[in-house]
Amino acid sequence: MRRLRMGLIGGGPGAFIGPIHRIAAELDREIELVAGVFSSDAVRSRLGGESYRIDPERAYADVATMLYAERGRDDGIDFVTIASPNAHHLPAARLSLEAGVAVMSDKPATATLNEARELAAIIGNTRQPYRLSYTYSGYPLVREARSLISAGRIGAVRKVVVEYAQGWLAGAAMGKQAEWRVNPAQAGEGGAIADIGVHAFHLAEFVTGLRTTQLLADLASVVPGRTLDDDCQILLRFDNGARGVLLASQIMIGERNGLRLRVYGDKGGIDWSQEQPNRLTLHHADGRTELIQAADASLSGDAKWASRTPGGHPEGYLEAFANLYRDFARVLRGESGSLIPGIEDGLRGMALIHLSVHASRERAGWINFEV
Amino acid sequence: MRRLRMGLIGGGPGAFIGPIHRIAAELDREIELVAGVFSSDAVRSRLGGESYRIDPERAYADVATMLYAERGRDDGIDFVTIASPNAHHLPAARLSLEAGVAVMSDKPATATLNEARELAAIIGNTRQPYRLSYTYSGYPLVREARSLISAGRIGAVRKVVVEYAQGWLAGAAMGKQAEWRVNPAQAGEGGAIADIGVHAFHLAEFVTGLRTTQLLADLASVVPGRTLDDDCQILLRFDNGARGVLLASQIMIGERNGLRLRVYGDKGGIDWSQEQPNRLTLHHADGRTELIQAADASLSGDAKWASRTPGGHPEGYLEAFANLYRDFARVLRGESGSLIPGIEDGLRGMALIHLSVHASRERAGWINFEV
Amino acid sequence: MRRLRMGLIGGGPGAFIGPIHRIAAELDREIELVAGVFSSDAVRSRLGGESYRIDPERAYADVATMLYAERGRDDGIDFVTIASPNAHHLPAARLSLEAGVAVMSDKPATATLNEARELAAIIGNTRQPYRLSYTYSGYPLVREARSLISAGRIGAVRKVVVEYAQGWLAGAAMGKQAEWRVNPAQAGEGGAIADIGVHAFHLAEFVTGLRTTQLLADLASVVPGRTLDDDCQILLRFDNGARGVLLASQIMIGERNGLRLRVYGDKGGIDWSQEQPNRLTLHHADGRTELIQAADASLSGDAKWASRTPGGHPEGYLEAFANLYRDFARVLRGESGSLIPGIEDGLRGMALIHLSVHASRERAGWINFEV
Amino acid sequence: MRRLRMGLIGGGPGAFIGPIHRIAAELDREIELVAGVFSSDAVRSRLGGESYRIDPERAYADVATMLYAERGRDDGIDFVTIASPNAHHLPAARLSLEAGVAVMSDKPATATLNEARELAAIIGNTRQPYRLSYTYSGYPLVREARSLISAGRIGAVRKVVVEYAQGWLAGAAMGKQAEWRVNPAQAGEGGAIADIGVHAFHLAEFVTGLRTTQLLADLASVVPGRTLDDDCQILLRFDNGARGVLLASQIMIGERNGLRLRVYGDKGGIDWSQEQPNRLTLHHADGRTELIQAADASLSGDAKWASRTPGGHPEGYLEAFANLYRDFARVLRGESGSLIPGIEDGLRGMALIHLSVHASRERAGWINFEV
Repeated sequence: MRRLRMGLIGGGPGAFIGPIHRIAAELDREIELVAGVFSSDAVRSRLGGESYRIDPERAYADVATMLYAERGRDDGIDFVTIASPNAHHLPAARLSLEAGVAVMSDKPATATLNEARELAAIIGNTRQPYRLSYTYSGYPLVREARSLISAGRIGAVRKVVVEYAQGWLAGAAMGKQAEWRVNPAQAGEGGAIADIGVHAFHLAEFVTGLRTTQLLADLASVVPGRTLDDDCQILLRFDNGARGVLLASQIMIGERNGLRLRVYGDKGGIDWSQEQPNRLTLHHADGRTELIQAADASLSGDAKWASRTPGGHPEGYLEAFANLYRDFARVLRGESGSLIPGIEDGLRGMALIHLSVHASRERAGWINFEV
Repeated sequence: MRRLRMGLIGGGPGAFIGPIHRIAAELDREIELVAGVFSSDAVRSRLGGESYRIDPERAYADVATMLYAERGRDDGIDFVTIASPNAHHLPAARLSLEAGVAVMSDKPATATLNEARELAAIIGNTRQPYRLSYTYSGYPLVREARSLISAGRIGAVRKVVVEYAQGWLAGAAMGKQAEWRVNPAQAGEGGAIADIGVHAFHLAEFVTGLRTTQLLADLASVVPGRTLDDDCQILLRFDNGARGVLLASQIMIGERNGLRLRVYGDKGGIDWSQEQPNRLTLHHADGRTELIQAADASLSGDAKWASRTPGGHPEGYLEAFANLYRDFARVLRGESGSLIPGIEDGLRGMALIHLSVHASRERAGWINFEV
Repeated sequence: MRRLRMGLIGGGPGAFIGPIHRIAAELDREIELVAGVFSSDAVRSRLGGESYRIDPERAYADVATMLYAERGRDDGIDFVTIASPNAHHLPAARLSLEAGVAVMSDKPATATLNEARELAAIIGNTRQPYRLSYTYSGYPLVREARSLISAGRIGAVRKVVVEYAQGWLAGAAMGKQAEWRVNPAQAGEGGAIADIGVHAFHLAEFVTGLRTTQLLADLASVVPGRTLDDDCQILLRFDNGARGVLLASQIMIGERNGLRLRVYGDKGGIDWSQEQPNRLTLHHADGRTELIQAADASLSGDAKWASRTPGGHPEGYLEAFANLYRDFARVLRGESGSLIPGIEDGLRGMALIHLSVHASRERAGWINFEV
Repeated sequence: MRRLRMGLIGGGPGAFIGPIHRIAAELDREIELVAGVFSSDAVRSRLGGESYRIDPERAYADVATMLYAERGRDDGIDFVTIASPNAHHLPAARLSLEAGVAVMSDKPATATLNEARELAAIIGNTRQPYRLSYTYSGYPLVREARSLISAGRIGAVRKVVVEYAQGWLAGAAMGKQAEWRVNPAQAGEGGAIADIGVHAFHLAEFVTGLRTTQLLADLASVVPGRTLDDDCQILLRFDNGARGVLLASQIMIGERNGLRLRVYGDKGGIDWSQEQPNRLTLHHADGRTELIQAADASLSGDAKWASRTPGGHPEGYLEAFANLYRDFARVLRGESGSLIPGIEDGLRGMALIHLSVHASRERAGWINFEV
């Protein structure tokens, strides 16, 4: 079975996420990076291509050119990965999908909710595969938590606490990665809510299987001069009546990438932290506390499928990301079983951003969560 | 210098908090339990007295009798500790204060905010010492956190996250301790908010030195049939503009006594958890992470004063509680330096309960925090 | 039932362990400190007595005087606690036991193995209660570990790793506490091995129920100019054939009081650390990991008996120590069930010191462990 | 710059380490797996090749054939990776080196010390690059620890405690991975000492920069019927006089891959655990405790070079392994700066195995460590 061929959009010199996508995509040898638009500047795109060691001719300066040129090759790309700032997501996805090329996109889906709706329509029309890199849903023990809850191991979910604590934007934004994220022209409607809030939101819905029905948002721009939000406090209601809290902040100095999910049902609870991803705490109603570890024999099929090493050999962020690409490959190959999120989750994330930003600005209190 | 003499109100057979008060009060030999009203039932009060090994004659069946009898003794009590359910706080405090006897009271101050106002007036009139056992403010590293913030080590506070997670009331309330807490006639206006929310609230204000100015409360009774709240999600604003979240829940199965405080300023952050009380994480703006440990040479005077053992010999809840009694003894002896909270904090706690319960019920959105 | 009356030997101004004994002894109100020889200097002993708030007349300057005077009182002491440097243990114990007064002694039992044998003879002759404060055996979860192993939960023990890591003597000994410990005239034959190695040794035997039959010792004086050992590496064999390692060091900079015990059998394993004493990890042969917490409903009777607070309210070193005094009170009252160690354990500890020091000096290889 | 081409020896169906090598080698796109001898059975080797998605023609059934065939291609392999059981290391390395092909080999270098000496001679004669996958030396914070110690941050090293705790061989060996490791014909002289002890040993020497001069070994076969060791306790002396302990065991039930290194000097100490590889504790002599985290701005060049993600995005075992391959690529490209171990470390590891096994069998006491 041949390796699927990937074209990367974004991820040029200085980018963090481009090389991450490349590593994740190729980790299991199901996918190969062969082309890309690493920059809109032709010279920089060539340099980007060199850094990835791809054929220099396949480092393009715009998406349309790449799509056209690759279509003409026997070994042309099977899909594009969009890893550019949010404002570029929709145009790049549109071109690709309409050219009959599948899309793996960074979250959030687009820069605005309206764009996401437009994208959803394009996907509907083109019927091309489109998936989103909600990376944290790729961790084995996240999938185990999902399996446990789905199997009723903690009973009916009552309470969800999800937090995503970072501190790297606690001061003035410095460097390419920081700058575009605080710039509405590039990032879109949301700051922290769009950058990390949507991850937390997706994780909560992914693991619990619940859907948010109402929210109350309290967002702020804490750093002086910042226009987009950098600190988010959101209360939630889910479709089964469960209650929740979502915290997302980029001004909590000292926090690296503190994504943590706790879910409590009427028979137990689970607790997982991204910075120690190979452990999952399972609380039982009778007071017992179980520590589930990656690669444990007791794990569900979904969690086992997502592991590559024996117990005690830590897997991390790149491997979780790679699991999304393995999922994506299953999608492209027409296989079943993929857990990678798609446009529905993308729309929900964009709705979260849009609703939170507006409701918070207007101090609107509880509002319905509608996509 | 003679030991101060204590009369305990409450804490009879089956009570958790009575023996805790006794141990804490006597730990440093500054105070001695000599009398008590351990039950309103004379026989049970005698049994309670026996369990504490006090003079059987000094185990009374009502507060007035104790106050009268003790006044007649050369070695009569110097103060009472009120450790009965909330509804008994005001009457017991009133009798004691008006009899010229100082009061150490369990939190919350009273059953309702109005009662607390009444109590404040009595304290004003009688000019007797009155203090409250917000136990967690007695931990050495909580006091260290307070010192660090007060000294500007994390800069201006921007964000407070305080949570108090328990799971023991996730099912039907069973046993004396659980039953009175879910019964409005005994507990007053609040459930979890009154039992643990006020601890979290006090801790946040104590450590940061800030005062809450606004809140938005979302309380619920999750367990079927429960009338008082058992799960609280509250958003906060502080007087310097800082933002915050307070979570308090008794339905998070598997959580024991998960009180955790995180505070972030524009120059750093602190992180402390009650279940590992001898460690305090200090985040620096330059990315360094420091682990401060109990009895470290670098500790402030307040934290050192609150420790009894060398580093690595864990002190816990009882020692933190004992620090409040040492503080209280300083108050009674007319010494300075005490950090134990008093009626002002009591009023703030009662306002938190009252405002949260009512605002939540009415889905009132943001309201001003006024005592 | 009246409180037992305690006379404290040692623990005067500047001492660490004296106040600890006082707190521990009195914590449960079964015992009361009423007299003491806090110093051999009469004035300093008086000052010591004041710091404990005892009757000034009962602060004596020598043990014989105390024993004589207390015998003459209706409310005289029931027992002495010996908390002076090791060299004073034997004379103080002899006087007390021969005066018909029970003894609670700090570990190690004496300064030398020969002294311990002498002491054992005295105990045999006088038939007075004598017990030793191997403090760490008082922790609830240590007793739980013992119960689990005794109940066969980890199968036949195969491997024991016990370590006691400290760093406070990594430089020149400064202060009263440090100075006597590095002085052979006060400490006896052993340095770190006598100060902390015996704790680790007792813990291992206490929890496993095994007895050491052979050892291979590698002790050193790492700090220049030190005559007693400050770093110990010891290999062990137990009477069931199990293997073990005991590490004890006071030169591991940054370590506070890092006593940790791991025991592995053919069906599971346990892991406990003194600095986080309220957690015990239980490994199962099928790969499951259980986190046992203090006050869990599942705990054995021994562990429950040793707890005072509900789950999540940390108990620490002082409470563990208090459990030894509760045990000791049971002994004095003729009750059963006590787990506090006595002279047999004292002799074993002294043999450990003696054999380790000599075997290491002579690079003797494996030797038999004989008392 | 073209990708280096790798031929894999071993790692066929059922193998754990083969796919690990493939992922690690390719992670940074500097190397590509193009050929292999995945099994000595031609059909199984083909199946292995398919699982790696390589050209079916390049899945060979023996090493000599691969070397010959690849030499004839323009795009032939640049090096082989030897990932077969220990007994195959020497013959495979010999053939490759003598064919002018560089070698990356799994540890331990060979099955016996004599073989290792033979291998060293071959390497000397052929002057081909030969390196060893002591994987754990690839972790960023291991390299940071090395830098800190090398820079004198903990002063002169006094004490090393290194342990490698596993439990997966606590019962009868089941499955391909377990079976060859307990079979002397495949594993060579050592069991646990060869499988994991050498890792611990290399880590200690790598991080401290010290060399072992003496050891005292106590190895055993704990599981009934096992001939090779499965539990090792070793005392060490280093060339600067520092003392150490090395524990390696595969019968500690519940332990996954518990490699931990602690090093203490006269000015500080470090503590690192493989299962939480992104944290490094640094103890200072003044009592401060610093928590160093992966990707911290303060890290040394060596540690930064070894990281791919921002702080808080955990990297794990595969990324550490990939760092060795990046090192190896530097070697092959003639670049400087590589920290990957070579035959000298291989010889030291084999000497550890040989000396430990024999000294333990003969209860030899302290012996000199000589290669």
